[in-house]
Amino acid sequence: MYRDPDPRFDSLGGHPVALRPLRVGMIGIGTVGAGTFRVLARNQALIAARAGRGIEVVVVAARNLARARTVVGPDVALIDDPMQVATHPEVDVLVEVAGGTGPARGWVLAAIAAGKHVVTANKALLAEHGGAIFAAARQHGVAVAYEGAVAVSIPIIKALREGLTANRIEWVAGIINGTTNFILSQMRDAGLDFAQALAQAQALGYAEANPAFDIEGIDAAHKLALLAANAFGMPVNFADVQVQGITTLRQLDVACAEQLGYRIKLLAVARRREGGIELRVQPALLPATHLMAQVNGSMNGILVQGDASGVTMYYGAGAGAEQTASAVIADLVDVARLDGTHAAQRVPHLGFQAHALHPLPVLQHAAVCTRHHLRVPVHSRQDMVAVGALLARQAVPVERLEWMADHPDEAHQVLVLTGEAPQGAIDLALHMLQALPEVAGPCVQWRVELLEG
Amino acid sequence: MYRDPDPRFDSLGGHPVALRPLRVGMIGIGTVGAGTFRVLARNQALIAARAGRGIEVVVVAARNLARARTVVGPDVALIDDPMQVATHPEVDVLVEVAGGTGPARGWVLAAIAAGKHVVTANKALLAEHGGAIFAAARQHGVAVAYEGAVAVSIPIIKALREGLTANRIEWVAGIINGTTNFILSQMRDAGLDFAQALAQAQALGYAEANPAFDIEGIDAAHKLALLAANAFGMPVNFADVQVQGITTLRQLDVACAEQLGYRIKLLAVARRREGGIELRVQPALLPATHLMAQVNGSMNGILVQGDASGVTMYYGAGAGAEQTASAVIADLVDVARLDGTHAAQRVPHLGFQAHALHPLPVLQHAAVCTRHHLRVPVHSRQDMVAVGALLARQAVPVERLEWMADHPDEAHQVLVLTGEAPQGAIDLALHMLQALPEVAGPCVQWRVELLEG
Repeated sequence: MYRDPDPRFDSLGGHPVALRPLRVGMIGIGTVGAGTFRVLARNQALIAARAGRGIEVVVVAARNLARARTVVGPDVALIDDPMQVATHPEVDVLVEVAGGTGPARGWVLAAIAAGKHVVTANKALLAEHGGAIFAAARQHGVAVAYEGAVAVSIPIIKALREGLTANRIEWVAGIINGTTNFILSQMRDAGLDFAQALAQAQALGYAEANPAFDIEGIDAAHKLALLAANAFGMPVNFADVQVQGITTLRQLDVACAEQLGYRIKLLAVARRREGGIELRVQPALLPATHLMAQVNGSMNGILVQGDASGVTMYYGAGAGAEQTASAVIADLVDVARLDGTHAAQRVPHLGFQAHALHPLPVLQHAAVCTRHHLRVPVHSRQDMVAVGALLARQAVPVERLEWMADHPDEAHQVLVLTGEAPQGAIDLALHMLQALPEVAGPCVQWRVELLEG
Repeated sequence: MYRDPDPRFDSLGGHPVALRPLRVGMIGIGTVGAGTFRVLARNQALIAARAGRGIEVVVVAARNLARARTVVGPDVALIDDPMQVATHPEVDVLVEVAGGTGPARGWVLAAIAAGKHVVTANKALLAEHGGAIFAAARQHGVAVAYEGAVAVSIPIIKALREGLTANRIEWVAGIINGTTNFILSQMRDAGLDFAQALAQAQALGYAEANPAFDIEGIDAAHKLALLAANAFGMPVNFADVQVQGITTLRQLDVACAEQLGYRIKLLAVARRREGGIELRVQPALLPATHLMAQVNGSMNGILVQGDASGVTMYYGAGAGAEQTASAVIADLVDVARLDGTHAAQRVPHLGFQAHALHPLPVLQHAAVCTRHHLRVPVHSRQDMVAVGALLARQAVPVERLEWMADHPDEAHQVLVLTGEAPQGAIDLALHMLQALPEVAGPCVQWRVELLEG
């Protein structure tokens, strides 16, 4: 293996590492697996100097053993049966970076039952099966670490679970899907429509051939379920996340947001409210001057509001082989340190002791109260009056109501920014607007988030 | 004590906490101490649900016992001798939030010798006496935690020590002094000169009556020494930090930076270079569109470049009672978890195993190579030619050379942006510029940092 050329670490300063190396079994040696292997090899001496012991990949499960051999070199055992790696007697910790949910669930549960710690970057797995996996891990006294499952390069799970433990977390708001953020950035910067921007993201490798999980908001919802659990002390609740993707966004929406001084981002929000929490992924308008509006391209950004800390923000790459490896290996270093300690003294899987986790009611869609942006097609400028009058009758607080600036392909649109109003009230107002004779086409509505500290 | 009204946590869901509470002795019950006490009380059930055990302040050292009593209530012992708290038999962990270096060093070393863990927010103490303190802590097998010493609300020490362990850290660049960032923001936003902005910072409580530590850059240098140690695996080296404060900055400098598309920030930089590291605190021009240029008011922001993670950024309040409490309590929760484990399995004090810490040579001032901004007063616009010619003769790479826009109080200034050049070459060029007959007054030079990922 290639060793870090920094002579300081060649022999750990002459002091041998006292603990035996942590032995890793890895399932999946695709982009993330290969990146993890590469970073572990490149920085091995440095990582051992931090962890207090070596971290060695001893066995890898791969579909294509010949190709895998070119990645791992001659010294690592290769097996084509993932289950054998999960339960391998020489493995201390399973790294699951194969993806998918059904088979991965079986491998992870088998590893846990065999007393092995688990590190995974698989958000879908934990969002959908986290309850069973964490329960099994508690029963067997092992760690399940998943920093790579959310905003890979950013240690946000660690920040929530350990860095902000003093706080009652009030809300978390994140741009946590790099693909959609790239698409939205291109729609704004290059004036592309959604389909064009998606095609570009696919051509550049930012989007999968089947991009549905990303553009429909599912991937962000998986991650939000994990963030909310760690923020609020609730079990992972993916089923109740309200999800809206970006597929219906048009270039016109982006341009109108700009006119109003906003940027459109796919925002994942978990927020405490009286009567429950908000748990939702939606395109939203953010003030163009807000730090979160500067999170562009495929980057991720997460804001956390704590009652003592105030707002903190975390920013970094949301995807990439070595960026994910950074998180996976940080988890391995944590495991290298905690292996052998009593499970009761470790950071709990979801940041709270298991007996203190309680489900929180999720606010229904209609009850979620935010600001809104409406775009109302009309026949003429005079029709602004009718739009304003209807919103007033419906008691929708209007903060701005203005005429859309000249646009090459569109004309006669009224742009509205409302104050805070429940989604139910907005939906009703939209329904009534749609019936007005002055309204010339389908009205459009997006949430507006000020993200105030 | 006030208890969190959230009924979920009232009795930890009916499950009693198994471990006995962690007992805290606190030295100092000023702003930060009182804030820590308040947050511990307000969120005590929630914190216990995260930590797996309660965290109780059992004794506090204070100068004014009567005033302290109004803060801590009737159930906490008060002592006017800090050393008695440091060595108190009922204390598991000492929280030192009194500040200062000489006496605090004695208290902390006494607590360590008595086998107690230490949590402190005292950057001056650790920057100046970290070597002795960490050595003693290793000898006695106790933790010394100091998240509150750097960028209080931001878990940046945890990010470096634990979140980014996979990475060879290439550089860290931070806006880590809230007072100077407030002053610089006011100079830009309100057009104030330095003295006016400082007076305003003092009036608003952002600056001390004696603001020297902040405005001379010493406070940022203390923090940088801690960040660099954790980033690079070196002992804390405050003595070698090159420090330049903001006291000579003029409103004109801010305006010229704006004209060029930059903002001036007090930037702390630790960067690996061939032949050594840069370790420096200086005012610097950042591109106005960079995320770090949006860190305004008293907020802090830190960029970290890792070889696997790429750039990540961390943002939050850099001062404040409860913001500091957030960090101090996070450290206490870590201590609550690690107390009783073997010291070899804990996160090392500076992120690397002690035997792997090695001093790194710090590049001399003249050898530090960055871009630069020069402002050269001349007699007339024609003198730009002479300025450009001299820089060309001196082989200083010039990227922009332009005339300063109209300014009410100033005239006839040439503004220059250079490419990368060693400080020594720039200093020599400035010396020679100063001797040109075309130059009408003192030339000014600031570093330019692109902070590219």
